[in-house]
Amino acid sequence: MKQWNLLAENRQKRIERGLTITGRIADPDKIVALLEALIEPGDRVCLEGNNQKQADFLAGALCALDPARVHDLHMLLSVLALPEHLDIFDKGIASKLDFSFSGPQAVRLARLVADGKLNIGAIHTYLELFGRYFIDLTPRVALIAAQAADRHGNLYTGPNTEDTPAIVEATAFKSGIVIAQVNEIVDVLPRVDIPADWVDFVVQAPTPHYIEPLFTRDPALISEVQVLMAMMAIKGIYAEYGVERINHGIGFDTAAIELILPTYAESLGLKGKIGRHWALNPHPALIPAIEAGFVESVHSFGSELGMERYIEARPDVFFVGRDGSMRSNRAMSQTAGLYACDMFIGSTLQIDLQGNSSTATLGRISGFGGAPNMGSDARGRRHASPAWLKAGEQARQGRDVMPRGQKLVVQIVETFREHMQPAFVERLDAWQLADQAKLAIPPVMIYGDDVTHILTEEGIANLLLCRTPEEREQAIRGVAGYTPVGMARDKKMVENLRDRGIILRAEDMGIDKRMATRDLLAAKNMKDLVRASGGLYVPPKRFRNW
Amino acid sequence: MKQWNLLAENRQKRIERGLTITGRIADPDKIVALLEALIEPGDRVCLEGNNQKQADFLAGALCALDPARVHDLHMLLSVLALPEHLDIFDKGIASKLDFSFSGPQAVRLARLVADGKLNIGAIHTYLELFGRYFIDLTPRVALIAAQAADRHGNLYTGPNTEDTPAIVEATAFKSGIVIAQVNEIVDVLPRVDIPADWVDFVVQAPTPHYIEPLFTRDPALISEVQVLMAMMAIKGIYAEYGVERINHGIGFDTAAIELILPTYAESLGLKGKIGRHWALNPHPALIPAIEAGFVESVHSFGSELGMERYIEARPDVFFVGRDGSMRSNRAMSQTAGLYACDMFIGSTLQIDLQGNSSTATLGRISGFGGAPNMGSDARGRRHASPAWLKAGEQARQGRDVMPRGQKLVVQIVETFREHMQPAFVERLDAWQLADQAKLAIPPVMIYGDDVTHILTEEGIANLLLCRTPEEREQAIRGVAGYTPVGMARDKKMVENLRDRGIILRAEDMGIDKRMATRDLLAAKNMKDLVRASGGLYVPPKRFRNW
Repeated sequence: MKQWNLLAENRQKRIERGLTITGRIADPDKIVALLEALIEPGDRVCLEGNNQKQADFLAGALCALDPARVHDLHMLLSVLALPEHLDIFDKGIASKLDFSFSGPQAVRLARLVADGKLNIGAIHTYLELFGRYFIDLTPRVALIAAQAADRHGNLYTGPNTEDTPAIVEATAFKSGIVIAQVNEIVDVLPRVDIPADWVDFVVQAPTPHYIEPLFTRDPALISEVQVLMAMMAIKGIYAEYGVERINHGIGFDTAAIELILPTYAESLGLKGKIGRHWALNPHPALIPAIEAGFVESVHSFGSELGMERYIEARPDVFFVGRDGSMRSNRAMSQTAGLYACDMFIGSTLQIDLQGNSSTATLGRISGFGGAPNMGSDARGRRHASPAWLKAGEQARQGRDVMPRGQKLVVQIVETFREHMQPAFVERLDAWQLADQAKLAIPPVMIYGDDVTHILTEEGIANLLLCRTPEEREQAIRGVAGYTPVGMARDKKMVENLRDRGIILRAEDMGIDKRMATRDLLAAKNMKDLVRASGGLYVPPKRFRNW
Repeated sequence: MKQWNLLAENRQKRIERGLTITGRIADPDKIVALLEALIEPGDRVCLEGNNQKQADFLAGALCALDPARVHDLHMLLSVLALPEHLDIFDKGIASKLDFSFSGPQAVRLARLVADGKLNIGAIHTYLELFGRYFIDLTPRVALIAAQAADRHGNLYTGPNTEDTPAIVEATAFKSGIVIAQVNEIVDVLPRVDIPADWVDFVVQAPTPHYIEPLFTRDPALISEVQVLMAMMAIKGIYAEYGVERINHGIGFDTAAIELILPTYAESLGLKGKIGRHWALNPHPALIPAIEAGFVESVHSFGSELGMERYIEARPDVFFVGRDGSMRSNRAMSQTAGLYACDMFIGSTLQIDLQGNSSTATLGRISGFGGAPNMGSDARGRRHASPAWLKAGEQARQGRDVMPRGQKLVVQIVETFREHMQPAFVERLDAWQLADQAKLAIPPVMIYGDDVTHILTEEGIANLLLCRTPEEREQAIRGVAGYTPVGMARDKKMVENLRDRGIILRAEDMGIDKRMATRDLLAAKNMKDLVRASGGLYVPPKRFRNW
């Protein structure tokens, strides 16, 4: 007779073992013993490492486990951010990893893979990793982080809700075990983000969980070339397609766009016509546009350090709880970015002749994060909008195929990046990295056939309008400036593409390059951002230089 | 000075008005007055109409509002299932509609549109509608349904959680108002699905909310042709690609596949190799495969009437709470279906020569539901699996392009559907419907360039391997049987495609057609399903004929 409740029975035993160590509100001094009682060898363990919020106390405790007792863990992490995330492998406690992004730990990750200490299951986007939590990668144990708990175990995640709901739901409803580290235990929570029912143990960490301010860009570092590119983006794409629902990538290029909405875009009469709704973390660079009334709503994947008071004071714009603080949710915001936004625009490191782009560089396994999800045509989308229909029409003009819309996916990049590395290449480094890290296919960030526009300081290449792979290649070369790829352009063909409006120079859009100065930035430095926020934005110390 | 908390202030006023009518645990007799106090003209109102669970009491109350006081509502509904959902428009209370699926009300919906009484914003898939709730269609008021509430307002949704979490989160965290109808109010809930913080008013409905058993198919109605098609699916696709993570559409074709897993697939040695993980409602037809140990896990969009006790007894397979009952979640399961499954297979009504398929028929605006989301290549997916890689390789073979994987999207359809209507057509009815209903583009369910295989009783057309649009058209004609489309095939080209393995007949797969009898079905009728479940499955009355 087959038994059908092995997971629940095993869970019960683990909980009983755990309760012999400490109570449900656990003694932080006993955390290592508690984890040894709760975790079994070979377990799939989801350790909450988000883009911002880190379950750092639990990560440290995991590293202190006895590898003779707990080993061969299969770790699930959105983001490998802390050294502890890899120490677990170095110490022989874990052996397999499925993850999304490893930015700060990318070099060490590559080394551990080469040393055979770590076996990568796969590299994901956030949303597909969450999806797998409900299919074939359901966590047996989830180690998560919250702002506060009450004595029942209800959790308050505050503005950095991020991945917590998706992780906890998948774990708690498949007879898994959920352990939360919290900054404080209180009698009454400001609000409940995760019901106590879904949580097994709560432990107050000796220090508040680590949060990384990833989305803050100092306007002082924005160049005039970036201002010019931002102007072309607004006039040549945002206005051209009437893009109302947007996701911006991270970086100075898109920060420049955010900062000239209230100046340049306003002067073009675009308020209320572009950039009304956003799937975006609360970028400080968006403050001037919000204050100017450009932005109607922002839903966020996570929060951003220093923006707390500003968000609380702008509840008509952000998603906030009744306590006034934000509720972010990466799963829902990624869904919104995929399906409810008409455009993704972001930077990259390398673009090849087919338009494939990658941020992979040799010796680093950096992962994908969320960009491939947002930077891909949502082929399951069925609702129309003018921007989506226009992009779809351009892609299909002159072809006898079923009409459909298309997402605008814009790569914005200077032709040379730092250290004079060309952004345009014949062959992506991703190919070599795939060999090096034994990946099945090269780690492409955004595939060429999903990219609709490439924007450099030389102009815009509208790939939607290209009729052949050759035209596409020349359109890319035609905005690749003085890089070898750009120098090898077929000049006649590029001029033809320009005549047909496939390549647009600043002057073709009626943009006066002399206007492209930092004077267009609605905030020129961090202090201006603080001022624009009415003193509500409080930048982290490292960004305060006044 | 701009005010930034208009939504929260307005919300507060509405709540105060509401509390003059009745308490937070509202008097059901005062529901109409309560809604009139809470809802304002022009509001976006999300009325919970799921695939299964219906907030029917609140729908009825909405219809009883005085249109002089409450009018021009913009309704948001996943599914238009009840007459009340359209009565609201007929009575002049609502004027605009954004929705996903309208199956049972499709004819009346078309009439109301023609009469100018209803203006459709757009037709969505479920997941994109949820996405828009966080971007540009955030509900001002949400009218939802739950199984039970406690006196604080915590909600227990039980197995039919469905869309509730996505709706409530979007509404509650943007200063909206959430009103829940519940079947009972209890002291202690079996578990908390929605925290009380997120809910404003709770009302006990006089009768339990309506639930529709949509996914139950009586095995007695499965034909031997369908058994043959199921055999070809398993041998020619599931085994060929090693498909472990699957989403099945609704209908008898896929029910037949589910029912021959423990017989035919078992005999091929496929247990543990195919169909291990599912994004699927708890189909009763899956019971024999579960009992045979084929199925390791099932995550569900919603539940299915009669499956409650079976699910509770199989917690290793289904996602259940600590109370033993299921937790479904349409948003997470759709995400899983999109990104974590290697294959979608489902039926359709019409397929054209490019492989575009549609369930649209004239005079009916039936919407999309979830199929387009699952039945599309997830271009943002980055993790590899053997099935995904193989499909991607086939699609790109001989072409010098960046390698990438691809989702298997299979259309399974008999060449003639009921009333001898051909399933293959030169031109989809969707074109005419687009004109009729003034849609921007034809309502295509699955686009041809996302379809990888078409399976009929005549065989399998593998569209991945077609090199040109002409080959693709002939591959489709080559499995279109005696329909006019099939009869017009180029016989030589079809034979060539067969030689190249692009078209596969049953005999090409080594399938003995004489074996395709109902004897292969692990359950031949509803009683067999009950027996296979050990008496745990309790079919709804209409399915019990013994």
